[in-house]
Amino acid sequence: MTQEDEYFMGIALREAEAGLADGGLPIGAALVRDGELVASGCNQRVQAGDPIAHGEMDCLRKAGRQKTYRDTVLYTTLSPCMMCSGTIVQFGIPKVVVGEAENFDGNIDFLRERGVEVVLLDDEGCKDVMRRFLAKPGNDALWNEDIAED
Amino acid sequence: MTQEDEYFMGIALREAEAGLADGGLPIGAALVRDGELVASGCNQRVQAGDPIAHGEMDCLRKAGRQKTYRDTVLYTTLSPCMMCSGTIVQFGIPKVVVGEAENFDGNIDFLRERGVEVVLLDDEGCKDVMRRFLAKPGNDALWNEDIAED
Repeated sequence: MTQEDEYFMGIALREAEAGLADGGLPIGAALVRDGELVASGCNQRVQAGDPIAHGEMDCLRKAGRQKTYRDTVLYTTLSPCMMCSGTIVQFGIPKVVVGEAENFDGNIDFLRERGVEVVLLDDEGCKDVMRRFLAKPGNDALWNEDIAED
Repeated sequence: MTQEDEYFMGIALREAEAGLADGGLPIGAALVRDGELVASGCNQRVQAGDPIAHGEMDCLRKAGRQKTYRDTVLYTTLSPCMMCSGTIVQFGIPKVVVGEAENFDGNIDFLRERGVEVVLLDDEGCKDVMRRFLAKPGNDALWNEDIAED
């Protein structure tokens, strides 16, 4: 892990931890341009009752309107679902740094097929926050709702 | 076009027209379950400064948390971009009724490959509202921003 990856994944992970503390799904993200933070966010399903606000989406919303994403990197604590992966492709984000893909496979192959550079960190902190979330009674149902698994 | 399709596409189109009247991108959507409207929405890039709020996304946000989408139909005035298509697949929405794919191709093939039933109406009203939007000076830049075309 580069120092920059460690720093920005740390911001995404703090977002995830804050989400967990608020009773939400612990997935955080950070958008970076030229080594500077543009915005960070976390899953808002519980906190805002918003089903489209996955961590990556909340981060992109908070970043607001951008002329281009071609010069950005998106950090996310968990491998992106198909909504977030489609968004990354549509927005033309060229590089995604993923904290972990153990608790959720996500769509790393799809992203790579579409020309997105994906770095998978397999980060212990990112895995741990999801594990702590999933260990709590009832949270498996919340997680299934978040990824629309009936 | 069935009577139900005409009715719900009419709701999506009114959302698009309202968006245009507000200076926004004229793309609307409606989510339907068992012949009943769950929610409708329109693109909020200009109105809310929100880059993830395409018509379909705004509609799904307004619908709030749902236990399942397997029994829903999504109506959208314009063929869905990769963000919205990824969302449709992730959420497990089984059927999408598309107003038109002339002003924007979208990702109908991708949706069908992933098992989504797509009905393309080629609706004159849906085409017309986008044409009127694109004919205004400066709106081509706004449209390019919305689909992240540099």
